[in-house]
Amino acid sequence: MKLSVNRDKLTEALQKVNSVISTRTTMQILGNVLMEAQDNKLTLSSTDLEIRVTTMLEANVEGDGTTTLPAKKFQDIVRSLSGDEITMESDEQHHMSLQCGHSRFKILGLAPDDFPLPLEMTPTRRFKLGCAEIGRMLSLITYAVNQDDTRKALNGILFNVSENNFVTVATDGRRLALVEKIIEDFNGDDGDSILPVKSANELYRLMGKEGDAVIEFGENMARFTINENTVMTSKLIDESYPNYRQVIPAAFSKYVDLPRGAFVATLRRAALVASDRSYYVQLKFANNALEFKANSAEVGECVDQLDIEYVENEIAISFNPDYLIEPLDKLDSDNVRLKMNDGFSPVALSTDDGFLYVIMPMRSRD
Amino acid sequence: MKLSVNRDKLTEALQKVNSVISTRTTMQILGNVLMEAQDNKLTLSSTDLEIRVTTMLEANVEGDGTTTLPAKKFQDIVRSLSGDEITMESDEQHHMSLQCGHSRFKILGLAPDDFPLPLEMTPTRRFKLGCAEIGRMLSLITYAVNQDDTRKALNGILFNVSENNFVTVATDGRRLALVEKIIEDFNGDDGDSILPVKSANELYRLMGKEGDAVIEFGENMARFTINENTVMTSKLIDESYPNYRQVIPAAFSKYVDLPRGAFVATLRRAALVASDRSYYVQLKFANNALEFKANSAEVGECVDQLDIEYVENEIAISFNPDYLIEPLDKLDSDNVRLKMNDGFSPVALSTDDGFLYVIMPMRSRD
Repeated sequence: MKLSVNRDKLTEALQKVNSVISTRTTMQILGNVLMEAQDNKLTLSSTDLEIRVTTMLEANVEGDGTTTLPAKKFQDIVRSLSGDEITMESDEQHHMSLQCGHSRFKILGLAPDDFPLPLEMTPTRRFKLGCAEIGRMLSLITYAVNQDDTRKALNGILFNVSENNFVTVATDGRRLALVEKIIEDFNGDDGDSILPVKSANELYRLMGKEGDAVIEFGENMARFTINENTVMTSKLIDESYPNYRQVIPAAFSKYVDLPRGAFVATLRRAALVASDRSYYVQLKFANNALEFKANSAEVGECVDQLDIEYVENEIAISFNPDYLIEPLDKLDSDNVRLKMNDGFSPVALSTDDGFLYVIMPMRSRD
Repeated sequence: MKLSVNRDKLTEALQKVNSVISTRTTMQILGNVLMEAQDNKLTLSSTDLEIRVTTMLEANVEGDGTTTLPAKKFQDIVRSLSGDEITMESDEQHHMSLQCGHSRFKILGLAPDDFPLPLEMTPTRRFKLGCAEIGRMLSLITYAVNQDDTRKALNGILFNVSENNFVTVATDGRRLALVEKIIEDFNGDDGDSILPVKSANELYRLMGKEGDAVIEFGENMARFTINENTVMTSKLIDESYPNYRQVIPAAFSKYVDLPRGAFVATLRRAALVASDRSYYVQLKFANNALEFKANSAEVGECVDQLDIEYVENEIAISFNPDYLIEPLDKLDSDNVRLKMNDGFSPVALSTDDGFLYVIMPMRSRD
């Protein structure tokens, strides 16, 4: 392999592929990045055996070839260089000679033969979405994924497609977050796929604000092709996702539109005095006012208030404040709608662009 | 106690005093901040028994009094408030009622009787310096303080005054950093005081860019009065500081002026391939060039070069690169002077504003 490449472009490409690499791997080759030079393209790939990220960049290739280099060290070295263009040449022992300005490095690589091959997949579902939109959907739900290992299906994000309606869902059994979206030019069969949360986080990281991504699901694999030059594949969780629709109340008798910024700031403030052992904030809706109450034997108490438009019957309802703060922090709308029936039944937060969040209240103690 | 106070000013004052408070204290009162209201002043104090920080701010005091509040919680609450003015009133049980805009808090305090009294001190040395200058001196030497507990004196920073010459010194036995400065209007006796590194770090944090600080040393105590409204006192380390002057070579036969930014960037780059087990970078000075070399059996090798002005005999000299990178990162001058005798004797870095850094080379292996 012999080539020259722009330093900034190589830095950017290494950032894309390197984050997948586990620092705790016992297989040395998984700490390396696979480099393939051909047809004036340099292709970089990394994998943790579950996820594989591949990205392609332009290079001036004088000699084709394939090698692997220690990913983290290689990235640190490239980032540290001060010239614009890097020339590289690898020998048969997979020693890479690198030059940039006055700097000359020799980096010890490993033979590419041991680097895992990409897994095969046959897509059964395929559609395209804007990268910014995929990023928005992931950010609005990923925090709600179940963190413990008791229910494997809930350790991932559901991607459901039925009749051009695309839904992403995450839940940990205590709250549920979903974003719905109508998709154009959908090909394939309706159905469910569950993407592991680590893959969802990687995918979020790879999504910029620009361009499109092609999303493909197969039997046990997903493939995301971002702006035609970066591909992430991931294994799927082979479980059935619970019927999340039955968690969502069929109807709500009341709703109130809340100013998102002031609502989350006041919740956060009241949460400061809530007890660690019994961590809740009570909200009381009545007479065009929302009253916040929290207290603990250790710290003291808080009463706060927001002016709102609400003339229905008084409702007092208690929440773990963190379960409201998380989605409110991810949203960027000025207002959010809170829908209720009474102080004991599930409540929903929603916006008018497809976001829905359902949470069970805590037992009210007032 | 009954008063009102500006929220931003109270936030700023709490930031000053709270950092001293240890989160691992077993005495509950040491997690609290002492509040004294009198003569339209609110005085806040905190202590970890070694260091005490007191700061004063203007307040509209309607009722004098003294109380204590849980420092971290109080700071979080004050920071979370959205109004400009906070009114506070404490009762006999040291429950503080606080109001700001729509927000009302009750915060449970503790009686001030158990809060430690300030330690007495009789200054024997006293002088004044600009806050920015004290901050600069501390930042240029504090990283060199000894981290292990083998030599107690080296766990602090030496403040030495002799005949209007003020020197701060830190060393861990492998390298030594000092900054010298002529001081005006000095009162008292010459001598040494050793400030514990935790106190030095607190002092650095309290120094802004504006105004002056009065520095006073007594038998076992130091006092720093910053812009007349913030006072930090600290116990001193009651040991003799080693004779650091004998570490500094009497003369150097060669020197070279190095561009600081490019020098530290190249060192950092070469250090990337140095071995963890034998961590060094070799510098070779010859023919108007400085050559950098590093290698390891695990990663590979690096050769790099800087153009310099140097026509003396060739010198090859090896260093732990981190020991050069640390001081170079703290400096802000464009150039730094490296003074040498040969490849085996101590070397010095210096700037023309009183900074001197002495380091032993590692045994060169080329």
